Amino acid sequence: MDPSELMHLAIEKTQSGIAAGQSPFGCAIARGDEILAVSHNVVWSTNDITAHAEITALREACRTAHAILLDDCIVATTCEPCPMCMSALHWARVKTVFFGATIEDAENAGFNELTLAAAEVIRLGRSQVQLVGDVMRAECVNLFDRWKAAGGAAY
Amino acid sequence: MDPSELMHLAIEKTQSGIAAGQSPFGCAIARGDEILAVSHNVVWSTNDITAHAEITALREACRTAHAILLDDCIVATTCEPCPMCMSALHWARVKTVFFGATIEDAENAGFNELTLAAAEVIRLGRSQVQLVGDVMRAECVNLFDRWKAAGGAAY
Repeated sequence: MDPSELMHLAIEKTQSGIAAGQSPFGCAIARGDEILAVSHNVVWSTNDITAHAEITALREACRTAHAILLDDCIVATTCEPCPMCMSALHWARVKTVFFGATIEDAENAGFNELTLAAAEVIRLGRSQVQLVGDVMRAECVNLFDRWKAAGGAAY
Repeated sequence: MDPSELMHLAIEKTQSGIAAGQSPFGCAIARGDEILAVSHNVVWSTNDITAHAEITALREACRTAHAILLDDCIVATTCEPCPMCMSALHWARVKTVFFGATIEDAENAGFNELTLAAAEVIRLGRSQVQLVGDVMRAECVNLFDRWKAAGGAAY
């Protein structure tokens, strides 16, 4: 699975999330050519503060794969994972995480982020997860604008 | 609610989790005298790599409180929160987190931890959550011994 193709799925899912009044974050997980999960943030709709896109996608991928460890999986997420999500991706032992927008972009959109970069979580935590940024970043940042235009509220 | 009383609930819940074949971590959340959640780690039973005790307790507390933000809540967790859980506690805006065992204790028990202290996540991320360690630590470390004696497997 090409990372850009996987990111495209994450972006499409985020757009449907924005249309449903959810926050502008999406994530997709694949193992080889098999899509294990495509999710958007569902914090509002599920009343669950932990239901970021990556967490929700990891849960879905665990169900699809019938396993708690997702070795050899790649992940495309529209925004750099917050420390909660980056750590969850570590726990799941995914291989590579591709992201578009940055934590700074999310802050600029109004989200009250922990100012701790995903690369720092990996470095300080001595995780083996590979991280690749700047994947379709413009398209991913554009999701914040769409969300604002739709009247979205940050938390 | 006295933090030690809340920790006692978390420890009891962890013991029932160990008896059910789950990992030796528990967490309880209170607002004033109201208990909002008491949970143990359910990673194995729910096949969900994100289902650490704190994450599970936060989800339950959000349901109980009918809110995604848990201001003025205190949290007792048997082990120092990993960066995933510490960040989730930040997102929920809890007031104070009391913990017993440390991440090092969990590593010594065999868990493949991210070597990033909860205090560092708070400092680097500029979170307002207060953190208090060394609460009933001996009792909390003892949970790892009980879990090993019960044949527990780390992930």
